[in-house]
Amino acid sequence: MREVAVVGAGMTPFAEHFALGVKDLLPLAFAECAASVDKGLRTADLDAAWFGATGGTDGFAAGILSDALGLPELPVTKIENSCATGNDAVRNAVFGIASGLVDVALVIGADKLRETAQRDLLREWEATGADRAWDYPLGPFTPAGFALHVNRYLHESPATREHLAMVAVKNHRHGARNPKARLRFQITMEQAMTAPLVADPFGVYDCVPQSDGAAALVLAAAEVVDRYTDRPVWIRGVGLGLDSVMHQHKRDMTTFPATVRAARRAFAMAGLEPADVDVAEVHDFFTGIELMSYEDLGFADRFEGYKLVESGATTVGGALPVNPSGGLKCKGHPPGATGIAQCVELFEQLRGDAVNQVDGARIGLAHNIGGPTAVAAVTLLEGPR
Amino acid sequence: MREVAVVGAGMTPFAEHFALGVKDLLPLAFAECAASVDKGLRTADLDAAWFGATGGTDGFAAGILSDALGLPELPVTKIENSCATGNDAVRNAVFGIASGLVDVALVIGADKLRETAQRDLLREWEATGADRAWDYPLGPFTPAGFALHVNRYLHESPATREHLAMVAVKNHRHGARNPKARLRFQITMEQAMTAPLVADPFGVYDCVPQSDGAAALVLAAAEVVDRYTDRPVWIRGVGLGLDSVMHQHKRDMTTFPATVRAARRAFAMAGLEPADVDVAEVHDFFTGIELMSYEDLGFADRFEGYKLVESGATTVGGALPVNPSGGLKCKGHPPGATGIAQCVELFEQLRGDAVNQVDGARIGLAHNIGGPTAVAAVTLLEGPR
Repeated sequence: MREVAVVGAGMTPFAEHFALGVKDLLPLAFAECAASVDKGLRTADLDAAWFGATGGTDGFAAGILSDALGLPELPVTKIENSCATGNDAVRNAVFGIASGLVDVALVIGADKLRETAQRDLLREWEATGADRAWDYPLGPFTPAGFALHVNRYLHESPATREHLAMVAVKNHRHGARNPKARLRFQITMEQAMTAPLVADPFGVYDCVPQSDGAAALVLAAAEVVDRYTDRPVWIRGVGLGLDSVMHQHKRDMTTFPATVRAARRAFAMAGLEPADVDVAEVHDFFTGIELMSYEDLGFADRFEGYKLVESGATTVGGALPVNPSGGLKCKGHPPGATGIAQCVELFEQLRGDAVNQVDGARIGLAHNIGGPTAVAAVTLLEGPR
Repeated sequence: MREVAVVGAGMTPFAEHFALGVKDLLPLAFAECAASVDKGLRTADLDAAWFGATGGTDGFAAGILSDALGLPELPVTKIENSCATGNDAVRNAVFGIASGLVDVALVIGADKLRETAQRDLLREWEATGADRAWDYPLGPFTPAGFALHVNRYLHESPATREHLAMVAVKNHRHGARNPKARLRFQITMEQAMTAPLVADPFGVYDCVPQSDGAAALVLAAAEVVDRYTDRPVWIRGVGLGLDSVMHQHKRDMTTFPATVRAARRAFAMAGLEPADVDVAEVHDFFTGIELMSYEDLGFADRFEGYKLVESGATTVGGALPVNPSGGLKCKGHPPGATGIAQCVELFEQLRGDAVNQVDGARIGLAHNIGGPTAVAAVTLLEGPR
């Protein structure tokens, strides 16, 4: 297959965008992305686009994107895969380019959850991340569904609520400096531990602020990459993994097979191992999910994930910084954009341009999990050679 | 790129499936598809799936599919592209296999519009095929939107309402023999011409019965095709084309640029021309759309599409039979499944197994247009060599 590189990346701030719709957020993310292409991007060079969105897009998604960008001839495919939408959009664009049928592709994602909620459709939207007939009527709204896993994990492993708080404190420390993050402030262990309870064991600071936003990447085939930059970031691996949707079908609540499968596929494609990763953006929808994902991604042995956060290894300056962007936890989580925004952060990290730069980072990993834990996507990136 | 073939194809009847949900329709279509694989299909051989759906899927789409098939490890991407969803799902699966990263893929589509409507979401669903802010509030519900085009077309071209009726009579003649079609009866010119008006110039027999249903294909890379069949149907070309969503942005109401672009891409990839096509499944959402599409697909010169239906060329037995399955017109149109069902018909045609067999058919074309006319997808297939 042909090698594929990221040659441009950009995103809007993730925030409560009261005054901006999807039709505003998409061109804002695209403009920043296009401006980041070192040698410039001619929009006529774009052969195809993949658009990730999980909520309303103000109408026919593919057409809204091409109209909003003023590119009505651009062939657009809309991808939806719950919280893994962003990295699955990257995966499909990689297929397009690797096939030889597409040279240059736009990958873009956006969600405007405020509008989805305003139309009294929040309940409909939430059900698209669960089994409507069997799971959803029982009431495990998203924090409660994940809390079932994390409670069992805290019961079986040596990890405690303090370790969840450490993840929150770490990601707030990182996010405080990220101008694109929604929650740009630091918190203390005491604040995290005494915050109002959302769904035991999650307090407010264990949960993500959902938010609105958009993010975009331009991908190019190895053969044409020189037209766009001398510092491409290579996509070494992509992996998608699924698992049964319903909680009653999970054999073990303390691990996420979807992540294990996605990571195995991405590492196999890349010919890399977890120990090769220098920086990671991990799906911290809830603090405990980051902790558990350390193990599913192969960064820690079973039930030893807590050691990474306790030792400071996953803080910027440690051996394997996780969520230097602040993660979903501080940035926010518009699901269509989240995975792509993780790749935006890694693009900057692997080119040495990030706000919370990880020294010498060469291999980066992006990870999503959702639906509620039925799908995961992993992308492996490598810095300029 | 690697060549890609269809090695299995199946579908449910398109109907008002009062008693069946998406979770029932998907395994029914898959079972027929798997049974059609000459040398048998081991489900463990499936490397990935693409799932087309435009309406509700009873929850998280990708996970519902993998759970419904009892294949929770299968990586599934959900594709949505309005009425072009089915053939765009085929296109994305072709990218996956052509890239070398996937050997065997499932392409499956389903829609259960009855359930979408039952939940008072029909209006929300309809808006996903238009521009919610600018077009949709003005009231051009689907037949009215297409009627704007066809009225102008009848004004500018020599075609008349009689030619629309001829398309209806032809497709009912074909569909009457198709056990998978919803409307299995023939109609007369008089019935078509005097039917109650839906949106001028469309009477009831100019319109599609929307319907519920599912359809599935198994695709395989050339390298492994022998494991599954000695009679593969090759995918020669795939093309996706877009156009502005809003009617006020159309420069010419009598042609659909999305179709022209999609067809140009598919023919270029295939190295074929419209004259090479022996049998076609064309998106007859409304009779006039089939007529206009003859020209956009290159089968007729501008404003001469009427000659094809008038002469009987597009009837089975003619030079270029169109919609031997009965088309959307008689089969029904669950948009996630429609394009895939077209390929099911062509799979049978190109292997000589179809109900309304086109003698010696070697090259087949499938075509969708939607959103309302902002997206089109074209797939070109070739029979066993």
